[in-house]
Amino acid sequence: MALNLTQKLINDHLVSGKMNPGEEIGLKIDQTLTQDATGTLVMLELEAMELDRAKTEASAQYVDHNLIQEDNKNPDDHLFLQSATQRFGLYYSRPGNGVSHPVHMQRLAKPGKTLLGSDSHTCANGCMGMLAMGAGGIDVALAIAGEPFYVKMPKVWGVRLIGKLPKWVSAKDIILELLRRYDVKGGVGKVIEYYGPGVSQLSAMDRHVIANMGAELGATGTVFPSDNEIKRYLKEQDREEDWIELEADKNATYDIEEEIDLSSLEPLIAKPSSPGNVVPVREVKNTPIYQSYIGSSANPGYRDFAIAAEIVKDKKIAEGLSFDINPSSRQMLQDLVKENHIASLLQAGARLHQAGCNGCIGMGQAPAYGRNSLRTTPRNFPGRSGTREDSVFLCSPETAAASALTGEITDPTTLDMKYPNVQLPKQPTVDKQLLQRPLSYEDAQKVELQKGPNIASIPKMDEMPDQIEIPILLKMGDNISTDEILAGGARVLPYRSNLPEISKFTFEIIDETYYQRGKETVEKGGHAIVGGFNYGQGSSREHAALAPRYLGLRVAIVKDFARIHWQNLVNFGVLPLTFVNEEDYDLLQQGDVIVAKDLKRKVNEGNEFSIELKGKNQKIQVTHALSERQKEIMLKGGIINWVKDRSEKQG
Amino acid sequence: MALNLTQKLINDHLVSGKMNPGEEIGLKIDQTLTQDATGTLVMLELEAMELDRAKTEASAQYVDHNLIQEDNKNPDDHLFLQSATQRFGLYYSRPGNGVSHPVHMQRLAKPGKTLLGSDSHTCANGCMGMLAMGAGGIDVALAIAGEPFYVKMPKVWGVRLIGKLPKWVSAKDIILELLRRYDVKGGVGKVIEYYGPGVSQLSAMDRHVIANMGAELGATGTVFPSDNEIKRYLKEQDREEDWIELEADKNATYDIEEEIDLSSLEPLIAKPSSPGNVVPVREVKNTPIYQSYIGSSANPGYRDFAIAAEIVKDKKIAEGLSFDINPSSRQMLQDLVKENHIASLLQAGARLHQAGCNGCIGMGQAPAYGRNSLRTTPRNFPGRSGTREDSVFLCSPETAAASALTGEITDPTTLDMKYPNVQLPKQPTVDKQLLQRPLSYEDAQKVELQKGPNIASIPKMDEMPDQIEIPILLKMGDNISTDEILAGGARVLPYRSNLPEISKFTFEIIDETYYQRGKETVEKGGHAIVGGFNYGQGSSREHAALAPRYLGLRVAIVKDFARIHWQNLVNFGVLPLTFVNEEDYDLLQQGDVIVAKDLKRKVNEGNEFSIELKGKNQKIQVTHALSERQKEIMLKGGIINWVKDRSEKQG
Repeated sequence: MALNLTQKLINDHLVSGKMNPGEEIGLKIDQTLTQDATGTLVMLELEAMELDRAKTEASAQYVDHNLIQEDNKNPDDHLFLQSATQRFGLYYSRPGNGVSHPVHMQRLAKPGKTLLGSDSHTCANGCMGMLAMGAGGIDVALAIAGEPFYVKMPKVWGVRLIGKLPKWVSAKDIILELLRRYDVKGGVGKVIEYYGPGVSQLSAMDRHVIANMGAELGATGTVFPSDNEIKRYLKEQDREEDWIELEADKNATYDIEEEIDLSSLEPLIAKPSSPGNVVPVREVKNTPIYQSYIGSSANPGYRDFAIAAEIVKDKKIAEGLSFDINPSSRQMLQDLVKENHIASLLQAGARLHQAGCNGCIGMGQAPAYGRNSLRTTPRNFPGRSGTREDSVFLCSPETAAASALTGEITDPTTLDMKYPNVQLPKQPTVDKQLLQRPLSYEDAQKVELQKGPNIASIPKMDEMPDQIEIPILLKMGDNISTDEILAGGARVLPYRSNLPEISKFTFEIIDETYYQRGKETVEKGGHAIVGGFNYGQGSSREHAALAPRYLGLRVAIVKDFARIHWQNLVNFGVLPLTFVNEEDYDLLQQGDVIVAKDLKRKVNEGNEFSIELKGKNQKIQVTHALSERQKEIMLKGGIINWVKDRSEKQG
Repeated sequence: MALNLTQKLINDHLVSGKMNPGEEIGLKIDQTLTQDATGTLVMLELEAMELDRAKTEASAQYVDHNLIQEDNKNPDDHLFLQSATQRFGLYYSRPGNGVSHPVHMQRLAKPGKTLLGSDSHTCANGCMGMLAMGAGGIDVALAIAGEPFYVKMPKVWGVRLIGKLPKWVSAKDIILELLRRYDVKGGVGKVIEYYGPGVSQLSAMDRHVIANMGAELGATGTVFPSDNEIKRYLKEQDREEDWIELEADKNATYDIEEEIDLSSLEPLIAKPSSPGNVVPVREVKNTPIYQSYIGSSANPGYRDFAIAAEIVKDKKIAEGLSFDINPSSRQMLQDLVKENHIASLLQAGARLHQAGCNGCIGMGQAPAYGRNSLRTTPRNFPGRSGTREDSVFLCSPETAAASALTGEITDPTTLDMKYPNVQLPKQPTVDKQLLQRPLSYEDAQKVELQKGPNIASIPKMDEMPDQIEIPILLKMGDNISTDEILAGGARVLPYRSNLPEISKFTFEIIDETYYQRGKETVEKGGHAIVGGFNYGQGSSREHAALAPRYLGLRVAIVKDFARIHWQNLVNFGVLPLTFVNEEDYDLLQQGDVIVAKDLKRKVNEGNEFSIELKGKNQKIQVTHALSERQKEIMLKGGIINWVKDRSEKQG
């Protein structure tokens, strides 16, 4: 049967399940990527799993998010991450090397491989003929430990590119066109596969732009063929040996068919405050702006900075405008310096920032109150810039640079100049020492993890008990979000690497006494909580399961769970139960003690069983939805124990 | 009589007093400099004074401190400052142009002029044959409004430089030598004047290094002659016409005589946590470091970055080390780019940050916990880096770069390489549009101040009343600091441009009810406070006087005042009284109402007068220490009213 490229990549890595859209499949993971915001917890999980050494072909830890060092916390994290990469056999990319996605592309990405990353834009490396997917931290930790990644078999959305891009229109406008057509949910459950005669005119980095923002369509991944352009790119990176040719079979079909005629495109822009809010630039022209921002993984290419430099060269940006240049990688910054593009940008009045994610994730460069910001970044959700009720537009570097000159949103095709012809540098910088390589096995064994005062190991957690007799510490209503379980924000997030500290904030919005009361149950067998419908909705943060577990939560009984939080509860060994009869919710009160005996057998053998209410002569019927694999995980007390146990058996 | 250069500069600007050390003199101010951390309040003071237009020859507002934009507050400040410069006829330097001191030197500094700046390192421009001094914000606001600056006539400390600097030893080592000899109080009440045959080998920027850190000796200013090197420098900056020759008269003498034989110097380093804690680098060699930091106004020269680049060129910095490059100005960064020095630094592994003050004032680049940081900055007071209990060493760029390679403190003379011969660029960048020029008078009149939601005008304040009958709202003990009156720190400082908001923190450490109780007195004639010895010690922050005044404070009666807070109370119209008989302190209780009639005459005619305690049939005798000028200020209700009134009379 003729396969499209996505199907080929999946087929080559399939360890369980069948390639029927919607069915769970297990995939072997060849490479992983972590960044510092999510990576510290991943490394603590590897430590808790007692991982000996990474089992992937290549795993890299990048430091690109938390680069603002206003006290010791961020630099302590950097040193911890470096020591963890040395201990576990990972690559390490120091602060200042740039954003994970382009740096991974430069140094490690390989056609034909799978890449799992704890960053939603991991899909960017799909530009290299890889199957690259974002996932939660624990999923990546498991992949590093050699476990498959489980995901629903996606539909493959074939996007055929034809025609030739007009002048002043570039890769960003292509992905904005897809967002214009299908909005931010358009890619859910799908891998977007680009093919057709229009692909060859897009450089590897142009494809990165398009693949990266597959995340904004909600796609599972984005796949480009590995053609001669990828060969050229790998040769440029002094890695020609990593190239293989990859494309869809001749008569391959797609679950969904799409076509974009590139010649029909014009400069596009996503208005505040959604990447799907796309209109032609001309429709919002003359809107005054405070900021023009170049950079991020959504426009990381040499070309993206060079074209901006050529547009502003020998001119001055508008008075009062902040023209923020955020280089995406050290290698490219070196080339931009050598080829005089940085000089042009500085002369025009730009602010040159260190290489990293920076303002794209609200780390600096927030816009002024009530002012418009024009950015080449992937997202403009409200407040993401750091300024509440901000007003952020997303566009191409051409549009951003043209607007920097005028101080208002400007369609670059209306500039009185020739479209600059940007040449890639003849001898691009390749720094083979850019990433610190994994230590030898022997040297790695000697490494001690470097933990600043705000970094704490994840404590050992015990197996699921066979009998419980535990109090209900909290009874809650419907739609409890993970923000209510464990808030995000500047007060809480600095403790992301410190479970004992971050757990102090657990449920505090609902009940300030929970932390203390929970902690007191830990030695006595733990406790339960009760909730209504849609329990655990909102952010996917794993701490919302891990922190209550640390405080003794063993059982959550609710009307139904939000999907991701349910998964997190399973991963961290909290038994997630739902009422068989919803009206039983009314029987349970805060303070009641629930009793269950022979729990292991009950969980293992069926789904439904009963729980007693101590001293009340009442029973309620509950059920779980655990798969066979998840039952094993649950009995072990969570996925960390489960992996540790498997490694010991294999070891 | 033969004058030294300092005396000449003072003599040329003397508007009151005599040049006897210790005696108060008034000086005409030709130029001012404000930075963004202090400048917002200065601009609000100009607004409150209803200033028509700056009366100085050149006043410039720089944005270099608060460059980290995590929300709208800092960018709002930048836009406010820009609008204020346009309104009042000032120069404006946008974010990314660099640190005030080197940029002022490049574009505006002129030999023979006086410069007053609301930044303690304003003395740096003494390198240009200027009398350049740091001062409080209101002093600079007054100077912009055309008022003289009052200061005690300093002693002049003549430092004769002889001999030739050895290789690997540079300007930073010269000022560290003076700090080694005299520690951080050695320059108090003095202007340091450099002269002698050793001066000519120091470039203008080398002199900047030395002049800048006069602040660390506590000096009133630093003065260098304006010789052929300054002529060369001004020519390089395309401002040759601004040059005049200036040096001490032939037979001039100095109040204190000093000599440094440059040939005897070796690389020096200030150990944690004082700039005066200086030893030879070799004494601390092999100390492991986390960070090597290049930049700040204490090593802002092209040479300082270029020498570091030459040292690390074609090598790699130590693993795990953070090598932070903080360009001091846009012009120099452009040159460093053009001459390939930035490329060398990046290739070696440096992190390149935007031009500005950055980590020197704790805005980013804080070191990791318990790790040593090596910096070319001027100060290493505990915690200034952002990391509490930090460990910061101060040194030359040569020592910092050598240590970046080894990962430990390294005497650069022990490196196995030739001392690099750094050439200044043949055609240095000169950007005449770098600073936005003052608008024409007509255009300036049309400008509206741009105030973000966190910027509030200083409300109008009334004259001193002729009768008071006001309650004592607080009675405090000895040694009340300005931190207790109005705290600093991250919770309070973001409201520095918002008097109504920041006043909510007034006295909250002592009495949380003060804010509310104070506010209620505003419409009823205000209130008084009572204190013990050393009232208002500590930080010089003006808000500690302005905020209580805003809440109705009219009279402070204490045993004695800390000097600077006393001055601030006078400036903001709070009558500062001391007990004639200290035991009267015991008579006054919180809640007592004090009564005084005919107050204007009493304050104006003498120093001592009596105050009644209402309903207690008691009188206490108090006294003030106001000069004639300060009496005028007090009667008007503070210096803002006083200046406004004078302008109206002159106008």
